[in-house]
Amino acid sequence: MSEPDSDQPSIGILGGTGPAGSGLAARLASIGHTVVIGSRSKYKALEARDVLAERWPDIAEQLTCGDNATAARAEIVVIATPWDGAAAVAQESADHLEGKVVISMANALVRVNKEFQPLVPPRGSVAAHVQAAVPGCRLVAAFHHLPATELGHIDQPIDSDVLVCGDDPDAVRVVSAIVSRFPGCRPLDAGELSNAMAIEAFTAVLLQLNVRYKTRVAPRLTGINDPS
Amino acid sequence: MSEPDSDQPSIGILGGTGPAGSGLAARLASIGHTVVIGSRSKYKALEARDVLAERWPDIAEQLTCGDNATAARAEIVVIATPWDGAAAVAQESADHLEGKVVISMANALVRVNKEFQPLVPPRGSVAAHVQAAVPGCRLVAAFHHLPATELGHIDQPIDSDVLVCGDDPDAVRVVSAIVSRFPGCRPLDAGELSNAMAIEAFTAVLLQLNVRYKTRVAPRLTGINDPS
Repeated sequence: MSEPDSDQPSIGILGGTGPAGSGLAARLASIGHTVVIGSRSKYKALEARDVLAERWPDIAEQLTCGDNATAARAEIVVIATPWDGAAAVAQESADHLEGKVVISMANALVRVNKEFQPLVPPRGSVAAHVQAAVPGCRLVAAFHHLPATELGHIDQPIDSDVLVCGDDPDAVRVVSAIVSRFPGCRPLDAGELSNAMAIEAFTAVLLQLNVRYKTRVAPRLTGINDPS
Repeated sequence: MSEPDSDQPSIGILGGTGPAGSGLAARLASIGHTVVIGSRSKYKALEARDVLAERWPDIAEQLTCGDNATAARAEIVVIATPWDGAAAVAQESADHLEGKVVISMANALVRVNKEFQPLVPPRGSVAAHVQAAVPGCRLVAAFHHLPATELGHIDQPIDSDVLVCGDDPDAVRVVSAIVSRFPGCRPLDAGELSNAMAIEAFTAVLLQLNVRYKTRVAPRLTGINDPS
């Protein structure tokens, strides 16, 4: 499908063995990044890596793995753990994350009977907690609304806008440039990191719609024709 | 443009003189409802009514006005005040709202420098506060993401999905049926009233995008082809 592209930064995914992290790993490899799938257990990471490599032989060469500390050594790092572990996992690798673009994609949600409900963390968002755990990283919130399954179907485009926010405009641009190379996706600059609260919470509504309409939805914003 | 349709319920709009309430009044009249524009001041309501009637002579006959208590006597009632007055205004007219479909459309937001930020009210959403103020009404949260200006341009469709949520499924269906008659709009059932929190908060992101891209956005959800 693609060759590793030496111009593209390597990307480590902490907690990269779940559906979202694993789907993102495949998608990032498909656009030329070398990806380091990380996990608390390097054996679990190896298993996740091998599952992806077997499914998508063309990107096998770009998929590597290790424990979270190994993944945190990549040039860009994604925190893809469940939401309640995101800040702690980031803090454990804080030394490796200083000064780097770090992407928070988790949503704090709970399912009550048939309803998904957002949980508002004390700082407002999971992303804000990750930023507080590693004050020196350049935190960007992104990827919250992309359906995990569709992320991993790298032979198909994803018809979605991707809201990207953060307090470091250069870091937002770096992440937006990655998103713009996902077929079908359009990055949209959603402002400062404070907006992560609303972006994360809105995921509960999308999951609710998935249940109600037996589908997997993704957001598009009408009225923006030519984002610059 | 249209005749008053005696099959359509009358709709009162408390706080109907602002941009969103006024735009909604025109839009509802354009699909055949008789609309009662309400305000604390019946004179302010009259002014808003006359401005609309002059701009859109074809719907003048369907636009009436009065104080909020008068508007609250309509068959369906919309709370369109600024967010921090919504629960209090609903409570003032509680006697008229018992058992009725009541629509909350306000978003709790604050602008800090160039950024819009959501405020999370103590009960999670403005809608939850309105429901608590009038426990006997059938509260539905809707219309949050429709740009006020576009609502009022009744000669043009609005290209948007409209998220509708509430704890009374029949009330949600009543509101969804109204939305489905707005040209270009598609109602989507977003579940219980608890989801109003995320829907209201997400409005901050949409306003942020409006500023960033110098436009007015509205949401569409991909992946739902044939909502039923």
